[in-house]
Amino acid sequence: MQVYEAPLRDMKFVLNELHADDGFGGLEALEEFTPDLTEAILEEAAKVAQDVLLPLNRSGDIEGCTLENGVVRTPSGFKEAYDLFREGGWCALASDPEWGGQGLPEAVNKLTEEMICSSNLSFSLYPGLTHGATTAIEGYACDALKQAYLPKMVSGEWSGTMCLTEPHCGTDLGMLRTKAVPQDPDDAFGGSYRLSGAKIFISAGEHDLTENIVHLVLARLPDAPPGVKGISLFLVPKYLPKDDGTPGPANGVSVAAIEHKMGLKASATCQLNFDESIGWLVGKPHKGMEAMFTMMNTERVSVGIQGLGVGEAAYQSAVWYAKDRLQGRSLSGVKNPAGPADPIIVHPDVRRMLMTMRAYNEGSRAIGAWVARALDAERHASDPEVKARAEDFIALMTPVVKALFTDLGFESANLAVQVYGGHGYIAESGVEQFARDARIAMIYEGTNGIQALDLVGRKMPAHMGRYLRSFFHPVSQFVEANKGDADFGKMIEGLEKAFGALQLSTGTIAQKGMKDPEEAAAAATDYLRLIGLVAMGYTFAKAALIARKALAEGSGEKGFYEAKIVTARFFFDRILPQATTAFLAIKSGKASMMAMDVDAF
Amino acid sequence: MQVYEAPLRDMKFVLNELHADDGFGGLEALEEFTPDLTEAILEEAAKVAQDVLLPLNRSGDIEGCTLENGVVRTPSGFKEAYDLFREGGWCALASDPEWGGQGLPEAVNKLTEEMICSSNLSFSLYPGLTHGATTAIEGYACDALKQAYLPKMVSGEWSGTMCLTEPHCGTDLGMLRTKAVPQDPDDAFGGSYRLSGAKIFISAGEHDLTENIVHLVLARLPDAPPGVKGISLFLVPKYLPKDDGTPGPANGVSVAAIEHKMGLKASATCQLNFDESIGWLVGKPHKGMEAMFTMMNTERVSVGIQGLGVGEAAYQSAVWYAKDRLQGRSLSGVKNPAGPADPIIVHPDVRRMLMTMRAYNEGSRAIGAWVARALDAERHASDPEVKARAEDFIALMTPVVKALFTDLGFESANLAVQVYGGHGYIAESGVEQFARDARIAMIYEGTNGIQALDLVGRKMPAHMGRYLRSFFHPVSQFVEANKGDADFGKMIEGLEKAFGALQLSTGTIAQKGMKDPEEAAAAATDYLRLIGLVAMGYTFAKAALIARKALAEGSGEKGFYEAKIVTARFFFDRILPQATTAFLAIKSGKASMMAMDVDAF
Repeated sequence: MQVYEAPLRDMKFVLNELHADDGFGGLEALEEFTPDLTEAILEEAAKVAQDVLLPLNRSGDIEGCTLENGVVRTPSGFKEAYDLFREGGWCALASDPEWGGQGLPEAVNKLTEEMICSSNLSFSLYPGLTHGATTAIEGYACDALKQAYLPKMVSGEWSGTMCLTEPHCGTDLGMLRTKAVPQDPDDAFGGSYRLSGAKIFISAGEHDLTENIVHLVLARLPDAPPGVKGISLFLVPKYLPKDDGTPGPANGVSVAAIEHKMGLKASATCQLNFDESIGWLVGKPHKGMEAMFTMMNTERVSVGIQGLGVGEAAYQSAVWYAKDRLQGRSLSGVKNPAGPADPIIVHPDVRRMLMTMRAYNEGSRAIGAWVARALDAERHASDPEVKARAEDFIALMTPVVKALFTDLGFESANLAVQVYGGHGYIAESGVEQFARDARIAMIYEGTNGIQALDLVGRKMPAHMGRYLRSFFHPVSQFVEANKGDADFGKMIEGLEKAFGALQLSTGTIAQKGMKDPEEAAAAATDYLRLIGLVAMGYTFAKAALIARKALAEGSGEKGFYEAKIVTARFFFDRILPQATTAFLAIKSGKASMMAMDVDAF
Repeated sequence: MQVYEAPLRDMKFVLNELHADDGFGGLEALEEFTPDLTEAILEEAAKVAQDVLLPLNRSGDIEGCTLENGVVRTPSGFKEAYDLFREGGWCALASDPEWGGQGLPEAVNKLTEEMICSSNLSFSLYPGLTHGATTAIEGYACDALKQAYLPKMVSGEWSGTMCLTEPHCGTDLGMLRTKAVPQDPDDAFGGSYRLSGAKIFISAGEHDLTENIVHLVLARLPDAPPGVKGISLFLVPKYLPKDDGTPGPANGVSVAAIEHKMGLKASATCQLNFDESIGWLVGKPHKGMEAMFTMMNTERVSVGIQGLGVGEAAYQSAVWYAKDRLQGRSLSGVKNPAGPADPIIVHPDVRRMLMTMRAYNEGSRAIGAWVARALDAERHASDPEVKARAEDFIALMTPVVKALFTDLGFESANLAVQVYGGHGYIAESGVEQFARDARIAMIYEGTNGIQALDLVGRKMPAHMGRYLRSFFHPVSQFVEANKGDADFGKMIEGLEKAFGALQLSTGTIAQKGMKDPEEAAAAATDYLRLIGLVAMGYTFAKAALIARKALAEGSGEKGFYEAKIVTARFFFDRILPQATTAFLAIKSGKASMMAMDVDAF
């Protein structure tokens, strides 16, 4: 059964307690968002997730989206839910107040995103893509375009998309063929263009939730240089707005098909054809990749949160079943003498699975909150040093959040299926849907392999390793300050060892990669896992110390803090050892990976 | 695209070269099966898999099975394919010639099973379940029952099922409620019974492929003691055979529903109701678990082979795509100057995924062939020492084969999806089906967690560790004999280290588990992975030595043997390091895994 209650206590922990000393807090611009206010927002968001979105998750999966005569319909209830969501102001939550947004800190917003993804991943894409699109428009479009489109998009009246992929190119966008031909150089938006081409895998490319859809489309101008240096970004509405701002004539955008996917069935993934569609430049000619990457980077953190969201729902659904399902007796003595058997949560191997999921989720949430605080500091910090450090940290952690969280989210979903046994393989259980839904997050917005290459190829070497220092520095300070701790000394020692392996690996990759970039690429995926594990270890060790302090001070929330320490111990016992595997794999280099003749495969 | 060509060369390698010195060969009873003959059989089986079964894999997934008015229909083409399969003698391949079988060695049969699972996992269940059922009938039924049912089942005219699970009990069969009431004590089969009850998750429980279905049903007699000691096994045909052996009147077996599953959609998984259905005892009253476990153990090895089968198909489909898809340029210089980009197989991270799948498949195939040889020796060896050693080895390795191969098969299927990127998430690619299909193999015939408990709880301590010695002995001999090898010294050293970790872990678990069985249970899954990795390491190191010898002798198959060495090196570089993680996890014990209050979850 799909069960979900927003983990509000842990959310408040990562928001207000865990990162208080990270130097990213105390932002004047966000002073109005007091803990009281943000907690009230989180509680309201939880209600929307639990009461409005969760009930549509299974039915949306079963019904899916349909395409008939060029019209795409979302599953029953989605339109009503979207209207409620929009009217409640949830679309505008994190957007700039200048365009009608509520300017919520990202540290809070990312937690509401997690809830929405937990309760209904397919639904989350509709407002999620819109938010991504507004980011690019805010950053790169001319003022007239912003005025014409942002208010409607921020409110959620209109939705947005990102149109990148074409049948023959995804990762390698340099090959894209969609063309943009200048049309009216003197129009109100600085000149219009006619776009023609075919795009695939367009999430929310067409649907019945909003009266208009605003596509951000990568295309080539006639004078474009080849490759990625000749790509421009255009805004192309489904319907051209009339003078009064309401949707006018259709703009030559049509749906060729909706994809039949492994999961995420309530999200309409479309093949779109642009046929002389009118569009306007967002940013400069041939500089589309820059604008697209602004959008993409925001989205990458959000996709990481998707992984966490599904992982949390999977965890809770598995816990529910493990407490409910009676099977076998505890090895340490009967626990449910009144029943025919004990609940399966008594069995160590079931515990192993539940604790693994729990550790993945709490660890991801802790890292996510840290990065979200940096996003706020990047935008609002008055101290340039803080701003710069936030930028470095975000640059470094974006690929980690995207790839690590989505890998672990999928693993959690699969563990949930396993906890359910045979029942987990049956659609009615709801948990196999988590696995099918979560699978896409490892792929889109740049596959997790691409994230790893971004980490070792761009982020690691940038500015002589400066990005890395934004992470290494606090970890090394923490280890130094807490070595030999009376209760958690072994934990800190484990962290120190893993951190040492990370530093060694960094050196190895930097050195080998300088001579042979394939060496860095061969180490990329393991390196990303290694840095992710160290980040989790750091946040868990910190959390344990904070929990101990709260308990010593006689906190009324004994259960929460004790559980936090248990989960931290489990992480160090059972998850962190993965770091050794990653370290050894990195050390082995590219030789055996690249030795096989292509023909021998 | 689903691509599959039976890996005949590697199959012949594991069949004739790799295990020649394992002491399980040279069986007089199997002398007629010369390499020439078995290779011809494998080649014919490959044709059936590739030409008959593979083309129905995707269509079967799309169409699925249907239930209408109590009648279950398999997808289009399945009936024709089954008839061809049966007429070709493929159903009877491994069965006893006494009942019309061809008595093929298991060492060959398991390879044909792999091919069938690669090409069409859903299809494989129909003949597979029948074969399992005949095993139990051969071993436990009275002669009259054997005469009446085995010839038709062995030929494939009739099919078989295993009816264990009920809605409230799967793993914990002690709770089952299906009742068997004595009916006619003097009939030709030693007394008949009337069975009533509901069973779920019955693979091939009802379908249109055969004219009759023979259910093996676990049920309780009126005087049954409670728990697993009160379970008996019954043979219950769908139609009661007439005197001439043709199917007669219906026997009260009806389909309540077919399950909607994550995958394996062309296999009809049924909820069956038995309503006063006539059945006969197979084995002694209250001893049904024994007979069922005979069948289950055979099936467990076969389910492991399912994991390998899907893993191989996923690998080949990923290789095909990685050679075909052009995206990006090689970091070590352009490889496809005539094209707009290089095939993605040039990229290290894609190589990492392909080589991982390849190593998993070759390693599993090598272990599987070893166990299959033991199955033959167990049945046919004249030397009682060999027979006993084979029995020990099979007992030990059955849970390892089942759990390890299915874990890795699912992982391979997911890697294939990842190699395809966004296209892998789309049904048309065919690879997401591999992931959905492979997922069940980690669950049925005893979840992989149950396999691990069987390993540490039953197999490890049995006869003071005697089963373990059947595996430890050859590994330790091999390490001693090849330490310091000029070419592969580092490989042998890696094996020795992992083997040392396995021995240490064995000691730890035995010691701690004696005092506290939860300690053994907490280590189970990691221990199974550890022993599996050592077994793979052993077979890969052996394979490398054999390959070197063949190359030194000027083998005409340079490509094959060189690739074998590369894959072995990759395994030691990139996969075996997982052993350290498992070792450390085992060492950490149960404390943090079991510490959390149930209410804190």
